[in-house]
Amino acid sequence: MAGERMAAEMAEQPDRLAALVARWDGAVAQVRALAWPELAGSVIVARGSSDAAGAYGRYLLELVSRRPVSMAAPSLHTLYGADVDYHRFLAVAVSQSGRTPEILSTLQRMQAEGAAGLAITNDGSSPLARAAQATLALDAGEERAVPATKTVTATMMAFALVAAALGTAPFTREQAAELPAWVAAALADPEPAEVLAAQLADATRLIVVGRGLLYSAALEAALKVRETTRITAEGFSAADLRHGPIAVVEPGYPVLALRAPGPAFADMADLVDDLRRRGADVALVSEEEDAALPLPPGVPEALAPIVAVVRAQQLALALARRRGLDPDAPEGLAKVTVT
Amino acid sequence: MAGERMAAEMAEQPDRLAALVARWDGAVAQVRALAWPELAGSVIVARGSSDAAGAYGRYLLELVSRRPVSMAAPSLHTLYGADVDYHRFLAVAVSQSGRTPEILSTLQRMQAEGAAGLAITNDGSSPLARAAQATLALDAGEERAVPATKTVTATMMAFALVAAALGTAPFTREQAAELPAWVAAALADPEPAEVLAAQLADATRLIVVGRGLLYSAALEAALKVRETTRITAEGFSAADLRHGPIAVVEPGYPVLALRAPGPAFADMADLVDDLRRRGADVALVSEEEDAALPLPPGVPEALAPIVAVVRAQQLALALARRRGLDPDAPEGLAKVTVT
Repeated sequence: MAGERMAAEMAEQPDRLAALVARWDGAVAQVRALAWPELAGSVIVARGSSDAAGAYGRYLLELVSRRPVSMAAPSLHTLYGADVDYHRFLAVAVSQSGRTPEILSTLQRMQAEGAAGLAITNDGSSPLARAAQATLALDAGEERAVPATKTVTATMMAFALVAAALGTAPFTREQAAELPAWVAAALADPEPAEVLAAQLADATRLIVVGRGLLYSAALEAALKVRETTRITAEGFSAADLRHGPIAVVEPGYPVLALRAPGPAFADMADLVDDLRRRGADVALVSEEEDAALPLPPGVPEALAPIVAVVRAQQLALALARRRGLDPDAPEGLAKVTVT
Repeated sequence: MAGERMAAEMAEQPDRLAALVARWDGAVAQVRALAWPELAGSVIVARGSSDAAGAYGRYLLELVSRRPVSMAAPSLHTLYGADVDYHRFLAVAVSQSGRTPEILSTLQRMQAEGAAGLAITNDGSSPLARAAQATLALDAGEERAVPATKTVTATMMAFALVAAALGTAPFTREQAAELPAWVAAALADPEPAEVLAAQLADATRLIVVGRGLLYSAALEAALKVRETTRITAEGFSAADLRHGPIAVVEPGYPVLALRAPGPAFADMADLVDDLRRRGADVALVSEEEDAALPLPPGVPEALAPIVAVVRAQQLALALARRRGLDPDAPEGLAKVTVT
């Protein structure tokens, strides 16, 4: 069956996440031992599907470490030979395979320039893991389907652990322990994604929008749909969408809007109202009753992005199958990329 | 005539840029007086059309200041009340109108948290200018067309001046003085954009790709085309495109590829070859002979993004006119946004 591998790897997520959460104490100790006592800031080195998880980390780490966080521009280091002082910075490099050359050489450069280097990778013996001063191995098992699923949510959970190490995380340890069950509940309920996929059967474009902590999930949802279905899906923050691209929204335009109770909710509510006034077909990913893709009640905003990403995986899989595409091997997409 | 204002404002660019370059000494002195002697890093606060210019600044400033540069996540400050230490950071806030509330309040928060705050705005008496510790006013004159043109290239030039203040810029003062003439030469040659617009007459989607310093111009080109034509245009860095989204490229897919001699050229050349093997219709923005949108020979890579943005403006205008759209007032796009 098309997408069998992707579905199987999606199904592993509760166990993989539970295994990561169980390593809480060790992971926190590892990051604390590594990071500078007087952190000047952090920098996240990521690409492609890791970029969305990186955006999740970017928000969480700045919120919690109370120091500026930057997304690296790897080409400055790999092509331009920029000589940047990363003393007192924590550099977190993300690569599922641990073999993306640009991520590896950027982390090496940053460590040479003074950064404390942490790798988040699925392969604890990969070149990236060996090069980094410390590694949070995802141990999610081999990922054989081309669209990354279990490694994405595991990477997000790893960032949540880094956040817990650097300050007071906006979720409790008990809530983190509950996350695998929330993800399992979503996976046990594939029907909403099937229904939404039927509504989007002829869509050629899709806007996915989130705000604050859920912005990262919007990026990942758009990427997953684009990778598996050839729909031109774009992820936006609510503020950026409103600042211009909203102009393309005409009646019938499909929009996926992610929201959860928290500081960003009111602004998302305004945006959804505006989009609906423009005639957009807005499907909600939220814990509200009328959500197209429901989130479990009680999940804190800071962990909601992980569950929202799982919902988006279900949608991408259902859409691909409806369109006769095999998401396990979408044409033109290579698993290991050399950038 | 449709797009009359946009065309008129585009035509002002050589003079506006020349006026900015003429203020080199004063601008450099102003930034040097403001910035921390021992800079820990910089942060750029920008939205929407300023975001692409911000990306230009992000690359230039890290290269030149040799300290990490971050793109701010405003919602952390405006919604989440994040309490971040910006001591020894330079915060550069960009808003054409100087009235985008989220940009203003983010800069205020950062200054309160220790940042040295610089505003880049077209209105030197705007709330943003008044709130910032120092202001680089663009003085580009009122921008009445909805798609930003002259304020975008002026903002990019302002970032080039900030770069010159913070270190050794990757362009000479003489080259900066030549920029207005290069832009004028492009504006005096609208034919290539007309020809390309004819080829893209029925396009519904467009990928725009750049690498390194030209990545920012790819973002801006995509934004301009999207705003004025309703084509679903997306800007990518070469590395990110290759890391996944390239999967959607099938025979006939229209791609605009930006490149200039410099460290990023070889990688762009590889990508363009790959795209053409996939059957994509790749139009080059470069100084090569076969470029669809030519750049003037001799423009340094670090200033090429500004000329490439002007080329993209011409394309957006020509495409809009061909489609019977008025780029001066695209439906649904408001000039001042409240985010």
